[in-house]
Amino acid sequence: MTTWVDISTLRRGRPTANAHFGNASSVLVGDFIYTRAFQLMVQLANMDLLDHMADTTNVIAEGEVLQLMRAGDPSVTECQYLEVIERKTAALFAAACKGPAMLNDHGSDMQAALADYGRHLGIAFQMVDDVLDYTGDPEVTGKQVGDDLNEGKPTLPLIYTMTAGSTTDAALIRQSLADKSSEHLSDVITAVRRSGGIEYTQNQALEHQQKALAGLALVGASPAKDALVALAELAVARNR
Amino acid sequence: MTTWVDISTLRRGRPTANAHFGNASSVLVGDFIYTRAFQLMVQLANMDLLDHMADTTNVIAEGEVLQLMRAGDPSVTECQYLEVIERKTAALFAAACKGPAMLNDHGSDMQAALADYGRHLGIAFQMVDDVLDYTGDPEVTGKQVGDDLNEGKPTLPLIYTMTAGSTTDAALIRQSLADKSSEHLSDVITAVRRSGGIEYTQNQALEHQQKALAGLALVGASPAKDALVALAELAVARNR
Repeated sequence: MTTWVDISTLRRGRPTANAHFGNASSVLVGDFIYTRAFQLMVQLANMDLLDHMADTTNVIAEGEVLQLMRAGDPSVTECQYLEVIERKTAALFAAACKGPAMLNDHGSDMQAALADYGRHLGIAFQMVDDVLDYTGDPEVTGKQVGDDLNEGKPTLPLIYTMTAGSTTDAALIRQSLADKSSEHLSDVITAVRRSGGIEYTQNQALEHQQKALAGLALVGASPAKDALVALAELAVARNR
Repeated sequence: MTTWVDISTLRRGRPTANAHFGNASSVLVGDFIYTRAFQLMVQLANMDLLDHMADTTNVIAEGEVLQLMRAGDPSVTECQYLEVIERKTAALFAAACKGPAMLNDHGSDMQAALADYGRHLGIAFQMVDDVLDYTGDPEVTGKQVGDDLNEGKPTLPLIYTMTAGSTTDAALIRQSLADKSSEHLSDVITAVRRSGGIEYTQNQALEHQQKALAGLALVGASPAKDALVALAELAVARNR
């Protein structure tokens, strides 16, 4: 029953804290860092921001629990996939973008626009992440291929293949998810590529990138805006 | 690479969440509950309380990390033991007692008195807990004996035996701590009893119980005060 929150042992080419220090240390130091962040936020003495961050961290935790509940379930739909990544990833990105607007007393329009930018950036980022888990070069991404499959995560490339792929390809994906096994990883990758699951997910990511950029319409030209635009482009163009 | 934050598999006679649902679920649902508590606190809109709770949760996390760092270390002193339990347990009890005084606009004297009550109650409670890990009846406590030894936790009954016990008894404790092993549990229990480690720890717990009760001097007679007195008595008298 050895199960981490996430079984990946490599991040950016280096061992994860969990792999290096063990589960107990990683969880406890994680708690320490989280409580320290809470301390720093309280020092800002902005009740609206605290309220927003409290809601956000709760939604993120909810997303992680939801993802875990759906692991190994081949019946997960694209809509349910979006529910998970909006919580576990997009809510974090949205809060990171909305927070500074709140702290700088921008109006609710600007706050909503920046939250929207962050939300779509997060969705695009996560979709590309889920593609790279099958197509990435471990030498470049610094993490293994197939970790998601080992955890039985029904991500978009697989969901698309199960609905649009051939009967045989769909059956292979269903079985691998239910078994939480990357035993047939190379066949799975072939099936996902053949059925267009990679292309479909990349196109969805591009759509969210465009929505993210649209969210920046209210932001005046500035080096900061240029950086946000570049970030949205990088989130999709990245191969690592 | 042991897996849990705490290896106990039983609490109050029932399997722990970790033993029952696995590590990932337990950690993630724990995160969810923590973030939900943060949400509820923010709703109280009391910045002093938020500040205090942020500091407290940080100190608790620090205590857990400290305890982990000192696992398997037979050189830990009574003073270092106190550092750990003041953080991991007493800070939680103190905040639980001080919080209501803050919310009800009591003055700083009353706040400090109740924090003091909680702090000493927490220390007494933890010391008795550390005794019960060697002397408790699993049928009554609902948890195994010897879990602390298996984790190499240098708790007060052991620390006392290493300083005041015979050379042989002290050596046995040192070795068991360093090995993080309850292989010689019955010999360890005999050694701790023979050297007075149980009695010493119980007496220390009683001293903190008395300090806790002294902290209640400012509190007027009331059913609530009676309950706090009874709680301090129960914390030490309990066999479960």
